[in-house]
Amino acid sequence: MKVQLITIGDEILIGQIVDTNSAWMAQQLNLVGAQVTEIVSVSDESDAITEAMELAFKQADAVLLTGGLGPTKDDITKTTLATFLGQELVFHEPTYDRICRFFERIGKAPTDAHRHQSYMPEGAELLHNKMGTAPGMWMEYNDKVIVSMPGVPYEMKYLMEHEVLPRLKDRFPSLPIAHRTLLTAGEGESRIAKRIEQVENGLPSYIKLAYLPNLGQVRLRLSGSHENEHQLNQSLDQFAQEIKDSIPELIFGEEEDLLSAAVGRLLQKRNWKLSTAESCTGGHLAHLITTVPGSSDYFWGSVVAYDNSIKQSLLNVQTSTLEQHGAVSEETVKEMVAGALELLKTDIAIAISGIAGPGGGTEEKPVGTIWMAVGTPKDVWTKKLQAGKNRLKNIEYATNHALNFIRQFLLAENN
Amino acid sequence: MKVQLITIGDEILIGQIVDTNSAWMAQQLNLVGAQVTEIVSVSDESDAITEAMELAFKQADAVLLTGGLGPTKDDITKTTLATFLGQELVFHEPTYDRICRFFERIGKAPTDAHRHQSYMPEGAELLHNKMGTAPGMWMEYNDKVIVSMPGVPYEMKYLMEHEVLPRLKDRFPSLPIAHRTLLTAGEGESRIAKRIEQVENGLPSYIKLAYLPNLGQVRLRLSGSHENEHQLNQSLDQFAQEIKDSIPELIFGEEEDLLSAAVGRLLQKRNWKLSTAESCTGGHLAHLITTVPGSSDYFWGSVVAYDNSIKQSLLNVQTSTLEQHGAVSEETVKEMVAGALELLKTDIAIAISGIAGPGGGTEEKPVGTIWMAVGTPKDVWTKKLQAGKNRLKNIEYATNHALNFIRQFLLAENN
Repeated sequence: MKVQLITIGDEILIGQIVDTNSAWMAQQLNLVGAQVTEIVSVSDESDAITEAMELAFKQADAVLLTGGLGPTKDDITKTTLATFLGQELVFHEPTYDRICRFFERIGKAPTDAHRHQSYMPEGAELLHNKMGTAPGMWMEYNDKVIVSMPGVPYEMKYLMEHEVLPRLKDRFPSLPIAHRTLLTAGEGESRIAKRIEQVENGLPSYIKLAYLPNLGQVRLRLSGSHENEHQLNQSLDQFAQEIKDSIPELIFGEEEDLLSAAVGRLLQKRNWKLSTAESCTGGHLAHLITTVPGSSDYFWGSVVAYDNSIKQSLLNVQTSTLEQHGAVSEETVKEMVAGALELLKTDIAIAISGIAGPGGGTEEKPVGTIWMAVGTPKDVWTKKLQAGKNRLKNIEYATNHALNFIRQFLLAENN
Repeated sequence: MKVQLITIGDEILIGQIVDTNSAWMAQQLNLVGAQVTEIVSVSDESDAITEAMELAFKQADAVLLTGGLGPTKDDITKTTLATFLGQELVFHEPTYDRICRFFERIGKAPTDAHRHQSYMPEGAELLHNKMGTAPGMWMEYNDKVIVSMPGVPYEMKYLMEHEVLPRLKDRFPSLPIAHRTLLTAGEGESRIAKRIEQVENGLPSYIKLAYLPNLGQVRLRLSGSHENEHQLNQSLDQFAQEIKDSIPELIFGEEEDLLSAAVGRLLQKRNWKLSTAESCTGGHLAHLITTVPGSSDYFWGSVVAYDNSIKQSLLNVQTSTLEQHGAVSEETVKEMVAGALELLKTDIAIAISGIAGPGGGTEEKPVGTIWMAVGTPKDVWTKKLQAGKNRLKNIEYATNHALNFIRQFLLAENN
């Protein structure tokens, strides 16, 4: 099936908001085998909406509209839809009752605008929106389909997952489709491609492999489509396993997993507690680790030693080390690890010190020079990175690298 | 002038990347008085690109294309453009020389694909791209303009700022346009609107005020357009001043300023050093503070006391306090502030402890309960927030609130 996305609203055309909805919708539609032909953003004007729909139906089987349904904008989109379909707007009692009950609960009264929100094109089937007051609408149009949803991301996502995607799959049936996603860290796209070349060459024509790189990680997505769903799933499992066997140490998880969560699982397996000692990353590593629910089971804490005096007083970095080698050096990060282990009483610690920029670089240690160390009281690994010139990018780069460095150390320890 | 944006590339249609370029371009175009009529994403196919351009010129004076210029995709976009313009593709020697020199510097040889990159529609004026190998192109078409740029964000931004926006302003002159943006924190849109109602009602018709809310902050943008540029700027300054006088304590900066940078300036003014003691925010506050270049002048460090044992051993939170009031309490954050001041030897410290969720909530202290304290050895302020149920949102909400809490404390101290 071919689908076109139309987002309605001036907020996007004046650049006030980034259209993240369309990327998410496109991803989900691709996963059920739909092809997104175009994504169009138009203003809150009847002519613009009508013209975009007319053009869309030249190629698409279904058009998904988002936005333009708020209490103040409501009339334009719905009136336009009714005219386009040659239908009347009719008052929908159950919707108005639902809105009234909602306002009763919060002790307020609905306004005229909310009464207007309860008018729908007569032929529209309403899609129950558990996350807000404006329902979605499913409309048939000359053997094709128009869907209208609110633009609020969590409302749109709820409607897509629970109503729109299942209905689209029924309405425009296609061959069974399935996916497997493997998550890797530590190598770039081209080196991974070389190592799994044989597996890739052996894929049957009904299975495709996509490389999706992002922030030092590469997601490998196997997508297949075949009339025999059982055979499809078996094949996908088999090829996913072959890829895992080819690059075992690069794979940290599957589907929607996070590198920080993978580190957490390895820590829990050993029942180890982790601490961090951060200089240039300024707490960002601790932040990423603690975005994982339940991380308090294995993450004890962090010292952000931004000033050198803190490196000395709390982490016991020696004055002579700072004088001879500088704060950004292998010696300093090793002492920071030892200091964190001692101070925060954890089994394993990681330390990072670098020059995030834009200032502070020298000939010998340019901006982007980053040292990190990970270790236990028995064993410490160190590593030097050379990042770029952008302060924020350098912080993110160092943090992502550090997570994978902890993972690699734990894997070696677990063997 | 009316402008349409067309992004070329399957990456957007399969949802692999979010189109952040268009929002940025729309903002910049609005600032020079252009109206963005539509934003369209099409695939890497000649027909799709041609049709989108034909439709665009029904309403737009200029069409800006991004993407479709990489060494592998190059041919389609440029061949399509040449055909659309009725021109030949010609080899552009200086561009190829530039690419060769670049590869010489990095010790590699250019490929055939790079030779292809040097072909341009004969009538195109090349826009020098300092950030990459593919130049931008400026093409005249029936009194209208087509601009083609690479899709890489920093290359596109460079070309927009240095070449495209200045040329568009010359090519489609309009009345002088100017803006003033005031940044506020600590109040919502509707309360701000009430407090500046008189100023807003007094605005002349050639000046508009927009409220742009984001993450607990509201940007107030005055935009004006008038034939007399001097008078326009004078009026904008006057009304900006009137707004500042109406809500002095809410305004932390202007234009592209950051709340974390505003906190930094207040600290530098007093020559004070800051430390943080974080529990539920897990280092995110220290991270935001240290994204500001030069923050090492006033930010000393942080203790992320994720486990209660760290709150006790490093920050000297009393066992009896934890037992009687719990880790998420006014008493605990007050002791954390005292502990941070003592341990990190700073003039001022802030502490945060809360239940980020999804687990850990109780009847009395549901998920989203957050306590914070900011203070000096002499004076401590405390505050309780009730956030929502989403872990990441709660962390961001608490962090942004904390930055403004430090700012408010410093403002009171400076008076």
